[in-house]
Amino acid sequence: MEIRALAFDVFGTVVDWRSSIIREGEELSRKKDLAVDWAAFADAWRAGYRPSLERVRRGEIPWKKLDALHRASLEELVERFGIEGLDEAEKDHLNKVWHRLDPWPDVPEGLARLRERHILATLSNGNVSLLVEMAKRSSLPWDLILSAELVRRYKPDPEVYLMVPRLLDLEPQEVMMVAAHPDDLRAAADVGLATALVRRPLEFGPGRSFRIPESGFDLVAGDFVELARRLSGQRD
Amino acid sequence: MEIRALAFDVFGTVVDWRSSIIREGEELSRKKDLAVDWAAFADAWRAGYRPSLERVRRGEIPWKKLDALHRASLEELVERFGIEGLDEAEKDHLNKVWHRLDPWPDVPEGLARLRERHILATLSNGNVSLLVEMAKRSSLPWDLILSAELVRRYKPDPEVYLMVPRLLDLEPQEVMMVAAHPDDLRAAADVGLATALVRRPLEFGPGRSFRIPESGFDLVAGDFVELARRLSGQRD
Repeated sequence: MEIRALAFDVFGTVVDWRSSIIREGEELSRKKDLAVDWAAFADAWRAGYRPSLERVRRGEIPWKKLDALHRASLEELVERFGIEGLDEAEKDHLNKVWHRLDPWPDVPEGLARLRERHILATLSNGNVSLLVEMAKRSSLPWDLILSAELVRRYKPDPEVYLMVPRLLDLEPQEVMMVAAHPDDLRAAADVGLATALVRRPLEFGPGRSFRIPESGFDLVAGDFVELARRLSGQRD
Repeated sequence: MEIRALAFDVFGTVVDWRSSIIREGEELSRKKDLAVDWAAFADAWRAGYRPSLERVRRGEIPWKKLDALHRASLEELVERFGIEGLDEAEKDHLNKVWHRLDPWPDVPEGLARLRERHILATLSNGNVSLLVEMAKRSSLPWDLILSAELVRRYKPDPEVYLMVPRLLDLEPQEVMMVAAHPDDLRAAADVGLATALVRRPLEFGPGRSFRIPESGFDLVAGDFVELARRLSGQRD
């Protein structure tokens, strides 16, 4: 069956959260004369992501926007990393660095090519305002912003993936989930979506060798430009 | 308070539903050798819109996508206008003319200008797939597709308007509803949104003189380019 729409994971797949947080953190260090290991800070912030989503998914805390979950983690991290002298407005601004993450270098060209033949949607745990600001800042040409927020669930809950074919009047197999993370793709495949793994070896920083399984997906690509080439080849 | 986002009514405000339906209807007449007054047909189809939404709003029938409401009206109209020889696939295609409506001439330039300073969202009773296909076909540069479908209500229910500030983390008065229809704007104003009336004197066809009240709105403009000029002037 032909792929009509692509649903993109965002953090790590479309944008390089780690470098972006380090960059803004280092600016903040210069401005406020702070000594912080921002790479460790970024990794710790991201490491808090899954546990806080899991608490929501298990019903231990009520559903909240990802901004609010990030903000709660940030309070802990500011303490843990001994960062002093930030007022509430400055912490709010730092929290919104997740709205200002830069895309990987192949993303603009890749999305432009993919958009010629496919409907392009985000499918992220990031809240709608985060995704809209990120897209506007980097001119990401989404046809549609879809967020876990719209169903008040978080990936990998099936309701999030199923939202895409439901809203687009497509069969699940006409929608391809694009992500750098096998668990995200496996959950999408479990409800019938096609899957494309895009390798992002630098997601957790340079020099970190990690291997992810590459079998079991409909397609594997090194970046979005290769993804576009592979998908157009599929149709030819 | 500064306007941060614009929420657009679509049918009649962004797109010229009447001319578009007439155009496709006349093509169909040539192809199938039909004698149909497509202007009357378009008017009758649109006239069935409000009553079918009202039945959903009153809870007489369960919530359905606008495509399904249009399809039910189409069955009646095909009968009433004595249109014969259309199979199910042809009726489905005709029903999706609502996905293929053309924008008013000022829309591309107007939206491009408005987008420089504002978040642009649809806020339509049209379902998501309809709005996505329409946008893709005419390159409408929405930052965000919002539809009544996302809250399974129809305008003028307040939940539809309130979705915009809720998802964008804005105050209601930071969102401006843009529409050619006073009732839509009044319902938006009732829940705190700012309002802009855009005149579309040709919505119901040429030569139909009708007057709509122009007082009580935050802004009145002749088209989207004037709207952009007025909104940027407001900030200067």
